[in-house]
Amino acid sequence: MSQSEFKKDALRYHAEPRPGKLSIEISTAAETQRDLSLAYSPGVAEPVRAIAADPEAAYQYTTKGNLVGVISNGSAILGLGNLGALASKPVMEGKALLFKRFANIDSIDIEVDTQDVDEFVQTVERIALTFGGINLEDIKAPECFEIERQLIERCNIPVFHDDQHGTAIVTVAGMLNALEIANKPIGEARLVCLGAGAAAISCCRLLKAAGMKPENILMLDRKGVISRGRDGLNKYKEEFAVETDRRTLADAVKDADIFLGLSGPDLFSADLLKTMAPQPIVFACSNPDPEILPEVAREARPDVIMATGRSDYPNQVNNVLGFPFIFRGALDVRASAINEEMKLAAAKAIGELARLPVPEEILQAYDVKEMSFGPEYIIPKPIDGRLLNTVAGAVARAAVDSGVAHAPLPDQYKATI
Amino acid sequence: MSQSEFKKDALRYHAEPRPGKLSIEISTAAETQRDLSLAYSPGVAEPVRAIAADPEAAYQYTTKGNLVGVISNGSAILGLGNLGALASKPVMEGKALLFKRFANIDSIDIEVDTQDVDEFVQTVERIALTFGGINLEDIKAPECFEIERQLIERCNIPVFHDDQHGTAIVTVAGMLNALEIANKPIGEARLVCLGAGAAAISCCRLLKAAGMKPENILMLDRKGVISRGRDGLNKYKEEFAVETDRRTLADAVKDADIFLGLSGPDLFSADLLKTMAPQPIVFACSNPDPEILPEVAREARPDVIMATGRSDYPNQVNNVLGFPFIFRGALDVRASAINEEMKLAAAKAIGELARLPVPEEILQAYDVKEMSFGPEYIIPKPIDGRLLNTVAGAVARAAVDSGVAHAPLPDQYKATI
Repeated sequence: MSQSEFKKDALRYHAEPRPGKLSIEISTAAETQRDLSLAYSPGVAEPVRAIAADPEAAYQYTTKGNLVGVISNGSAILGLGNLGALASKPVMEGKALLFKRFANIDSIDIEVDTQDVDEFVQTVERIALTFGGINLEDIKAPECFEIERQLIERCNIPVFHDDQHGTAIVTVAGMLNALEIANKPIGEARLVCLGAGAAAISCCRLLKAAGMKPENILMLDRKGVISRGRDGLNKYKEEFAVETDRRTLADAVKDADIFLGLSGPDLFSADLLKTMAPQPIVFACSNPDPEILPEVAREARPDVIMATGRSDYPNQVNNVLGFPFIFRGALDVRASAINEEMKLAAAKAIGELARLPVPEEILQAYDVKEMSFGPEYIIPKPIDGRLLNTVAGAVARAAVDSGVAHAPLPDQYKATI
Repeated sequence: MSQSEFKKDALRYHAEPRPGKLSIEISTAAETQRDLSLAYSPGVAEPVRAIAADPEAAYQYTTKGNLVGVISNGSAILGLGNLGALASKPVMEGKALLFKRFANIDSIDIEVDTQDVDEFVQTVERIALTFGGINLEDIKAPECFEIERQLIERCNIPVFHDDQHGTAIVTVAGMLNALEIANKPIGEARLVCLGAGAAAISCCRLLKAAGMKPENILMLDRKGVISRGRDGLNKYKEEFAVETDRRTLADAVKDADIFLGLSGPDLFSADLLKTMAPQPIVFACSNPDPEILPEVAREARPDVIMATGRSDYPNQVNNVLGFPFIFRGALDVRASAINEEMKLAAAKAIGELARLPVPEEILQAYDVKEMSFGPEYIIPKPIDGRLLNTVAGAVARAAVDSGVAHAPLPDQYKATI
């Protein structure tokens, strides 16, 4: 199919059978006069009184506990830039669709019409009690850091900026496996991160939490290596400024173990890849056009272990492996936050799933005879039905263990890793 | 069934089969990898671009056009008072359920955690573009007037405070019929309104729009008749201050044609009713306990024409006869507001429906042999399936005629009155 046909299909998909991708349905009996007298006046007065007496009762009598708001101001929509709140609506509806599809979470998009950090935070804070969790989406850096920080502080429900942490969790999941295959201990591995945006900073933070040494991480923005003493660094970049003589990408990647690209198309070359350490690990996550194409990388370095953001190559770093199940686990134990322990637990659970034998139905869906842990399979597939219990279970358990859960671990998670 | 059993049932109804009354579902194909590539990345980029180029495209490619936000701060929940935003959630979910049940409108509740007018307005204004319309609910007077006024001014979608206008529309619908039966021209009828809250003020405004003379309306608050020169009236009450010597309810109702109660239980007595004009019209809308019980009223004045807010007496003034269909009509022609013309058109359409022969299925549902236009049937029943096309059609047509529609009248409404 041509690209223009795909575009036409995409528009038709959004317009038919009716505009948009979501509907809101009645989840209970609402046919008879008696049903309606329970659903609305006078019956509804009882749950109102119960919640007024104890706010926790909202989890018992309303949708709150399974409801996630997908909230954006449209300031960084996909790779398209700042197109405003309304234009982000199809993406937010799509995200809500994925929450439902993969983890049976009721999710609704809310577009917030402001580019101001304080206004955005105030608005979301005031409507937060509607939801059991908030997924922030497509908000540009560096504002997204401050927005998330303030909302986490002010809300007593999980607030999670998926562009940062979802990407980080799935990236770290794959990277831990790549390091295992390349036999490189994370405590010694040297990483170059091209890109210093929201996802890059969150990835590098989570890699540190997983055991990577801060001095082994070189982060580059448009101006080159973020080194100590460089002028004009914001506080998020400052966190990754290291003592080094290296200035350019070429300086940085020489003998590096890992290249992590969260930048733009074709920004990493075969010549540079050739200078990396043996069994280099390349995560070229710019989407849809990676920093280096897998076939180009493979030709330059047959020993490369490679991941991209694309579904048409092996090892797709796809956020959908993370966010539905992370929220599922958090909601199921009524976690008040999604903390670092829960993020790392999610990354490890996703990674560990790739080490298990692949079920027959996945082989069939991908029309292959074999798929097993190795350079071509370090990240599980989104259609893997085991993700739900495995990842949600690990997150729920980590929430309980780290003391942010307000409900006990559900039975279905007690058997999981 | 005892009252305590009903309360238990109401709590169980809200807790089972799962908490709450709504779910958010996927309204399109979302099974295959290809479906998901259209629903999310990369396909979703196309509707994003289309909306960035033309905001109107949001109606074509997202749920916006059929999505109503039911928004409250919980400052006046049912008759229970100011119990806060979270406690209002069951009511707001119930309202959303009614939108779906009666008019197939997708509707989601948003609770806003502030009692401050400006903060509330700012918050709702910033998220308004998410929706095709906004139904304000359970916000206390007089703040509700200012909130609605400002939001109507700032939003380009319909904003409608149902506690005011929904009640007014259904009340006026019934009252026009009662006046017809009593053979009292609206231009001469004298009304006493006990209560000066949101619903009372909106009712009296709409009655004026329907032809009632301002000097024939006596409104009473806790301090008695709102008369010209009385101290400390807010500007909403000031609108109804008339030149009169009458001070008490007894003064006011003597020889009045209509008593409209929007106040509290048992505030109107048989003795006072006896002093009213022949064929008095009594709308005792305090709920669940009316200002005067129908059997008490009938004994005092066998010629009374009576309506209440209760489903177990004839002539229930029930907002559900209005708001689902009013929004249906407004959304179907993409009205930018719900103006006075549309409200009056709704009231007239609801009223006219009661003059038509009652369909067999309604007689069966109510287990009666006969039901026809008269003192015991001046307001149609909520289960009347004709409401949808009749009322929505009248509202849509009024929107087109008054110049606030941004889409043509759909074919299904062209045949309706």
